[in-house]
Amino acid sequence: MQRYFINADQFSDHRVTITGDDAHHIQKVMRMKPSDLILCANNKGAVYLCAIESFAEGSVQALIKSRQCVDSELPIHVTIAQGIPKGDKFETIIQKGTECGARCFVPFQADRCVALWKKNKADKKRLRLEKISKEAAEQSHRRFIPEIREPMNLDQLIAFSASFPFKVVAFEETAKAGQQACFPTVLKEMTAGDSLLAVVGPEGGLTAEEADTLKNHGFALCGLGPRILRTETAALYLLSAISYHFELLQCGVDE
Amino acid sequence: MQRYFINADQFSDHRVTITGDDAHHIQKVMRMKPSDLILCANNKGAVYLCAIESFAEGSVQALIKSRQCVDSELPIHVTIAQGIPKGDKFETIIQKGTECGARCFVPFQADRCVALWKKNKADKKRLRLEKISKEAAEQSHRRFIPEIREPMNLDQLIAFSASFPFKVVAFEETAKAGQQACFPTVLKEMTAGDSLLAVVGPEGGLTAEEADTLKNHGFALCGLGPRILRTETAALYLLSAISYHFELLQCGVDE
Repeated sequence: MQRYFINADQFSDHRVTITGDDAHHIQKVMRMKPSDLILCANNKGAVYLCAIESFAEGSVQALIKSRQCVDSELPIHVTIAQGIPKGDKFETIIQKGTECGARCFVPFQADRCVALWKKNKADKKRLRLEKISKEAAEQSHRRFIPEIREPMNLDQLIAFSASFPFKVVAFEETAKAGQQACFPTVLKEMTAGDSLLAVVGPEGGLTAEEADTLKNHGFALCGLGPRILRTETAALYLLSAISYHFELLQCGVDE
Repeated sequence: MQRYFINADQFSDHRVTITGDDAHHIQKVMRMKPSDLILCANNKGAVYLCAIESFAEGSVQALIKSRQCVDSELPIHVTIAQGIPKGDKFETIIQKGTECGARCFVPFQADRCVALWKKNKADKKRLRLEKISKEAAEQSHRRFIPEIREPMNLDQLIAFSASFPFKVVAFEETAKAGQQACFPTVLKEMTAGDSLLAVVGPEGGLTAEEADTLKNHGFALCGLGPRILRTETAALYLLSAISYHFELLQCGVDE
């Protein structure tokens, strides 16, 4: 069933008013008719089953039938601080990272980043990334659209990290040293509702100085297996492993 | 350090002769000089540290210095039978799946595949995919280049599956039914050296009939968490979870 994220202020007690691109999509792309069913999420955690009621120029009204109870969110809140990669790789990371359950993305201006997000282009870029995360959240049946933060340098990232009780860095050199138990050790300490900040370097990796600074600020340097992962693969590995740990393995434990 | 896969018959007792694209890459792209070090893998499991010795028109000779002992292969052998996706998504799956440790890929002509690999184009497509898997294997420090099989339909896939002791299907409907413990249950039964065949549907998913047929032939239908993953994300989720299970979690158990 088609799913749309609608601003919370467009919901009333029994109805939701859909405008903009979503109204266009319902009317012109999906060619829906009155009484057709859709799912409307308010990006505050609630998802409602709604029936199309009426159409107007540029807007659609739908009647709320019931609230959905399925929870599709990762039990822990994961923020990915991603070393800004080349080309359109950030778009891939946002799309796939949203599917895999990330709650927030931080573009991290690391030492070895080749790409620079200049101020005049950063806003346009963020708008595009927000569109991608909204669409991926709808497609993958999320309850929240991941947030996309302003780009941060190392100092800003460390200030930002102060509110996170759990912090990891995907660090290739650690993989070489055979320290693979670090990441599961962190996950085993976490319980539902906890927040994790995970840093991934850009194409050239993090410098030893960056890794040291992060380590000195409470980040655990974790290997992600013995193979060298591309920067755009590391975030997906982290999120898939987190899903496996909390949603599949622990599901097995409960039964 | 730059890593190349070289045909086993180009290795002698103490030397390796590098030809073709790799020789071009060493001479013209990397502009290496005598005594520069490279890693040469024979795609039979051995990787050697070699020093460039001499150059000739279209070939490079290198002296074998030592054998590398690091194992970068997943402890279990994973074959991904991937419902043929649209566009160039198969290339992404091969590239990222190689990084994440897959040993073999089977293009699976499922009912809902929109793309058809016609005989006259299939060979050219396989050559391109083999080039991508070789480059990804070099980049991610693999000891083996994953094999890319001929496309198979359901009957062929079932005949092929007979030699696999462990078989799973990533099945969305199972996710909806909340059966998330299936995949870890299969992994817990496996030990190093075992072979797993994992089937992923194309964009529209597998049909109920395909899922039933696979189930009747010993495949376990497994959910991959509560979010709906795109076809190109499912294989990476599977491989990341396998790596996490065998290379990170079990590493923790040993310590």
